[in-house]
Amino acid sequence: MAYELYYWPTIQGRGEFVRLALEEADAAYVDVARERATGMAAMLRLMESRRVAEPPFAPPFLKSGRLLIAQTANILLHLGSRHGLAPASEGGRLFAHQLQLTIADLVQEVHDTHHPISTELYYEDQRRAAKQRAEAFLKHRAPKYLGYFERVLARNSGGRGFVIGGRLTYPDLSLFQIVEGLRYAFPRGMARLERRHPRLTELHARIAGRPRIARYLASGRRIPFNEEGIFRHYKELEELKSPSPHIRR
Amino acid sequence: MAYELYYWPTIQGRGEFVRLALEEADAAYVDVARERATGMAAMLRLMESRRVAEPPFAPPFLKSGRLLIAQTANILLHLGSRHGLAPASEGGRLFAHQLQLTIADLVQEVHDTHHPISTELYYEDQRRAAKQRAEAFLKHRAPKYLGYFERVLARNSGGRGFVIGGRLTYPDLSLFQIVEGLRYAFPRGMARLERRHPRLTELHARIAGRPRIARYLASGRRIPFNEEGIFRHYKELEELKSPSPHIRR
Repeated sequence: MAYELYYWPTIQGRGEFVRLALEEADAAYVDVARERATGMAAMLRLMESRRVAEPPFAPPFLKSGRLLIAQTANILLHLGSRHGLAPASEGGRLFAHQLQLTIADLVQEVHDTHHPISTELYYEDQRRAAKQRAEAFLKHRAPKYLGYFERVLARNSGGRGFVIGGRLTYPDLSLFQIVEGLRYAFPRGMARLERRHPRLTELHARIAGRPRIARYLASGRRIPFNEEGIFRHYKELEELKSPSPHIRR
Repeated sequence: MAYELYYWPTIQGRGEFVRLALEEADAAYVDVARERATGMAAMLRLMESRRVAEPPFAPPFLKSGRLLIAQTANILLHLGSRHGLAPASEGGRLFAHQLQLTIADLVQEVHDTHHPISTELYYEDQRRAAKQRAEAFLKHRAPKYLGYFERVLARNSGGRGFVIGGRLTYPDLSLFQIVEGLRYAFPRGMARLERRHPRLTELHARIAGRPRIARYLASGRRIPFNEEGIFRHYKELEELKSPSPHIRR
């Protein structure tokens, strides 16, 4: 039976981390809110109906047989063990999940660069705080996270360029998406950062070149980045905070 | 062999969710940075040493036999299954973890009420944004999260007042800490919110009354809340944003 993925139909967002795993696993799935006319209604019903005993807090969530699983990292925990995208040992499985949860923290921080005050307000209504938060993110937080993942890659004695052991696991796929997303959102800052994180850059290229991922990225199933998702490109968020006559504002 | 918990020694923080599980399980553990003179150095070494193949990104982390496990929810995933604090079925285990990850998201949002711009700045240097974020948190986000957990409690057909089935699991312990922390940080806002979330309030009382938890809370092992942790009480964050002569600022 095909998996059913429930996620907002117009953005990559957090759902993309799940899509990449499903695509790499060549698993049959329906992207419900995109592919079915009644998909959005079904998604909202699963969140709100009193008949759902174990409701999700928010999309994405996945129907897997009789299970309804929410929280991106939790979905990947489930898919990873079912499709050979997680290590076999307990220690390996916990480390893969630890990396995924650290990626989830980074994703939240990326989101907050454009929404530092409230998800109820438009970006345009919190732009001043967004500029400050984006500056701090690029200066402190992005280097800290990317430096961490670079160290993990360097220390993996498997040495095949994956985060764990000698073969691909689900956090590798998510790190591809992190690099891809940061390149879109902060092209100047990310160009600087990538020079200091060559293993991460190589990992990105290696994942992009995997046949099933390459096929997916070239397909209509891959939604382009846009300014409704997690990774948004607002040029002013890469500009210096301090006003200067030489900087077009 | 006793577990070794590594966490900042002066705050409850994220480590507290792990401590509560260890205490309820009556598990032997060393709170390394608090109990050993060289504990802080050992903690930093585990994060920075090149000899640690699978390093943590940040505390808390737990040594469990030969495993070194980081990320709060991941540690609880491990402890839950070892100490009967998680459901037995796959679906139950995934739902417990989903709840824990939703709690982790809430914890991050609580943190950002006092640090909306940067963890590198003092609260005092981001107070204006903090007031805006705290207002949005109390108005929109806290009700959304607490309403969700209230629904989960209401729909649990086990009906014994736990989030899953008829007995305690680790997210119940974490929800106790959420209520306790929000009462400390936002006493006025939380008093209002609790009236609309009676099951959550009852869960808090039920957990507080469990013998091992009660013993722990009364012990010196429970660090009091303070203004270095996640849940901080800054009176001005509960005041209205709009200046008014009737409100002492």
